[in-house]
Amino acid sequence: MKLPVSTEWLLHCATTLAQLDPGTTASAAQLAQYYDLPAAYLAKQLQALVRSGALAATTGPRGGFRLARPASEITLLHIVEAVDGAASPYECREIRQQGRGALSPEECRNTCVLAEKMADAHEAWRRSLAATSLADVLAALPPSAPERTRRRMAGAK
Amino acid sequence: MKLPVSTEWLLHCATTLAQLDPGTTASAAQLAQYYDLPAAYLAKQLQALVRSGALAATTGPRGGFRLARPASEITLLHIVEAVDGAASPYECREIRQQGRGALSPEECRNTCVLAEKMADAHEAWRRSLAATSLADVLAALPPSAPERTRRRMAGAK
Repeated sequence: MKLPVSTEWLLHCATTLAQLDPGTTASAAQLAQYYDLPAAYLAKQLQALVRSGALAATTGPRGGFRLARPASEITLLHIVEAVDGAASPYECREIRQQGRGALSPEECRNTCVLAEKMADAHEAWRRSLAATSLADVLAALPPSAPERTRRRMAGAK
Repeated sequence: MKLPVSTEWLLHCATTLAQLDPGTTASAAQLAQYYDLPAAYLAKQLQALVRSGALAATTGPRGGFRLARPASEITLLHIVEAVDGAASPYECREIRQQGRGALSPEECRNTCVLAEKMADAHEAWRRSLAATSLADVLAALPPSAPERTRRRMAGAK
């Protein structure tokens, strides 16, 4: 069970964008330089966050990415599921309905209790990630972080 | 983020073993036939449950697998982590320490808040799975299930 490596990238890039002055954007190249990441692949991943509604992309010579909503309304779950999708890691292939022990379709009208418990765990994971917004992340950073981030981002091309 | 397909197999096989009469064992071949699964691969996976202490294996002509502990002491977490390991799906490669935005090692003495929140979510998932034992699963099955399971298992080779 593994999340893509780019999950870390996107969580950090979104946190960085949340620290920029309102109205400021950052390009994929700037963010790539800021974290020393492969720019083309990062750009693709940032587009996934645009599609999911967490980021907005503007075009043109000064175009780039910015948060599409207030930082308090973008949760870690939004970002993680934009990268990896919302599917549960547990796949139930209904093996209870096959082989010598096969239950009949009538006996399987209810979800298998094991699939149900695995889904409960996935929901607990989702709830935990949904409980933290980018604003919460920013609040946990040192007070000097946003100014420092803006300064160093301004220097990146 | 995906758990191995065999996660479903092992959850069901452990549930089946929990329904056998005390002292009774079932072979990998019997369990494979019961759920129509590839026997050799299933046997390998059952051994992972033996190594983790959830199952015990006995050898000899009437040998096979049985629970190593009471069903109330084997949780879904034991089984899932025996199959997939206990690592968090989120990998933090400390990108905060690289690129133009790199923080100094002194600034990174504390765990990154993003890694911390991802770890919290994994813990929520683990807690949810640890809260359900095989005894809880059995209690959610129809009252006729154990007798049926024993009968059909006895017919499998």
